[in-house]
Amino acid sequence: MDWLLTPGPVRLHPKALEALARPQLHHRTEAAREVFLKARGLLREAFRTEGEVLILTGSGTLAMEALVKNLFAPGERVLVPVYGKFSERFYEIALEAGLVVERLDYPYGDTPRPEDVAKEGYAGLLLVHSETSTGALADLPALARAFKEKNPEGLVGADMVTSLLVGEVALEAMGVDAAASGSQKGLMCPPGLGFVALSPRALERLKPRGYYLDLARELKAQKEGESAWTPAINLVLAVAAVLEEVLPRLEEHLALKAWQNALLYGVGEEGGLRPVPKRFSPAVAAFYLPEGVPYARVKEAFAQRGAVIAGGQGPLKGKVFRLSLMGAYDRYEALGVAAMFREVLEEILPAS
Amino acid sequence: MDWLLTPGPVRLHPKALEALARPQLHHRTEAAREVFLKARGLLREAFRTEGEVLILTGSGTLAMEALVKNLFAPGERVLVPVYGKFSERFYEIALEAGLVVERLDYPYGDTPRPEDVAKEGYAGLLLVHSETSTGALADLPALARAFKEKNPEGLVGADMVTSLLVGEVALEAMGVDAAASGSQKGLMCPPGLGFVALSPRALERLKPRGYYLDLARELKAQKEGESAWTPAINLVLAVAAVLEEVLPRLEEHLALKAWQNALLYGVGEEGGLRPVPKRFSPAVAAFYLPEGVPYARVKEAFAQRGAVIAGGQGPLKGKVFRLSLMGAYDRYEALGVAAMFREVLEEILPAS
Repeated sequence: MDWLLTPGPVRLHPKALEALARPQLHHRTEAAREVFLKARGLLREAFRTEGEVLILTGSGTLAMEALVKNLFAPGERVLVPVYGKFSERFYEIALEAGLVVERLDYPYGDTPRPEDVAKEGYAGLLLVHSETSTGALADLPALARAFKEKNPEGLVGADMVTSLLVGEVALEAMGVDAAASGSQKGLMCPPGLGFVALSPRALERLKPRGYYLDLARELKAQKEGESAWTPAINLVLAVAAVLEEVLPRLEEHLALKAWQNALLYGVGEEGGLRPVPKRFSPAVAAFYLPEGVPYARVKEAFAQRGAVIAGGQGPLKGKVFRLSLMGAYDRYEALGVAAMFREVLEEILPAS
Repeated sequence: MDWLLTPGPVRLHPKALEALARPQLHHRTEAAREVFLKARGLLREAFRTEGEVLILTGSGTLAMEALVKNLFAPGERVLVPVYGKFSERFYEIALEAGLVVERLDYPYGDTPRPEDVAKEGYAGLLLVHSETSTGALADLPALARAFKEKNPEGLVGADMVTSLLVGEVALEAMGVDAAASGSQKGLMCPPGLGFVALSPRALERLKPRGYYLDLARELKAQKEGESAWTPAINLVLAVAAVLEEVLPRLEEHLALKAWQNALLYGVGEEGGLRPVPKRFSPAVAAFYLPEGVPYARVKEAFAQRGAVIAGGQGPLKGKVFRLSLMGAYDRYEALGVAAMFREVLEEILPAS
């Protein structure tokens, strides 16, 4: 079980493991405040925002809910294209938040086209950047532009859970006003922290509600290096340590992640597998199962080689499998995984 | 900074540190499901409930909010005695949840009397068991009994954040229907997990709302060893490891914690300090600052000896200091801390 090839949680960065092995830090100390501010500063850099990044103790889903509930008031109209499990989740969260939700459905694997969201009358558009369930990457800048041409006052919220530190992310430059992410994906840390990035424009438009996820209260505390509620400070240490290592050579890191994912697609396509997405996210390679081969067989073939992979979610359950090298894997580990994938395909594909 | 004497986070249990140094586990694997179910089983034992314990990724405050929002519907009347910072928090959460809240105020350090809550017409009573801000322990069984005599249908919710694994806890036997706790106190793990214990009676009365904190959805997933949202699985491993170690000798452990806290009070009283609480919680020893000695002076005297202590919260800010041996400290470490405390008192108290 050492080859964690799931699209999160992922293999931990050595700096994260190192941080987690330290004695407990108390969050109301100068040392903790320093690391909290450092992590927030590095996250701002990672999201490429002039706004703020808030660190929440919880999963990426909590960050998505915080984003929706703090940007939109009940009764406001939002547009939610649904093209995978996580955009489905945005839809559910918006409904539960009391918004008037217009849903646009796409086959899993597809992503919305700019003309689909070029419609007037909405307070917001909710998009998933990298749809981890299908491996598809939405064209955020084009979608945000098309939406905002028709809704100059509208806010664009994005799930950047598996794009942060894996693909290109630039909050304002992409036309995104707020984004949610988490610690256990591109940041190569354990799960337990969610992040909400807020552009300067989003910061002016906060409509806080809820108690634990009241972002105005968080913002006030986090500007001082504190947090409203006891934070998972050990994970904040880990996040700061990893970002400090990766950000100075981010371009190289993103190029590696793109190359690694392309490598997986290459092996799959050599074996005649059909990719699930049309536009590839660098976070995960998703393939339809070969005709007549059940998911359990693929999973088992990888398990025998010490690897954990992911199956399909929602309507893709039992139809696809997914591999990810988003974790702390270098070039040679990726080549090793490619060799493993080839072996598996030889084993499971009917001899021709 | 090695002597963490704050009432949470606390010095980590060696079993927790060991668990945190392991490679990342994926939460949708058999190994993770096993550890999740094991942690839930051990937590049920720790809360002494025949009901269920749900593990949430978030702080104890999230667990308190989940408890309130899943047990009471907007417009229901609840009674909230306020006798410290955490009962103040219960009050705020109940208000934000849209409940009709009747507040009973007590001086910090005091706890409510059974006759105060023996009033008809309430759907619930919210109590803090061990008020970490004052060091006071509320008499939960007597309070719950008095309340339920007048409100047989009423539910009693309790904050057991610093009583779980520190003092006597027994959900149903104490007349409590639901309780909230967290990982970073008596469980000697890092912060990042909240727990909600639900008695069989509370389970029948769930009125789920919210998205991330929808306990009905959690219950369904957690019965299978899963969780609705990506859990801080590394911390679940740590919690299971610590409980597995401590629960078989719980009586001895609680006796140690009680003795350690009494030791701190003994040293303080020898030095002429006045304790804050009337009824002592075993989780923390809280003292009024000696006449003319500012908190910064006490904090600094401990810091020079490598210890981190806690000051006052809310109206007690600048008036008290708090010491806790809730963390992974044995008998001899406690005696060392007692010696440190004596030294500090000699240094800060005016020579008589």
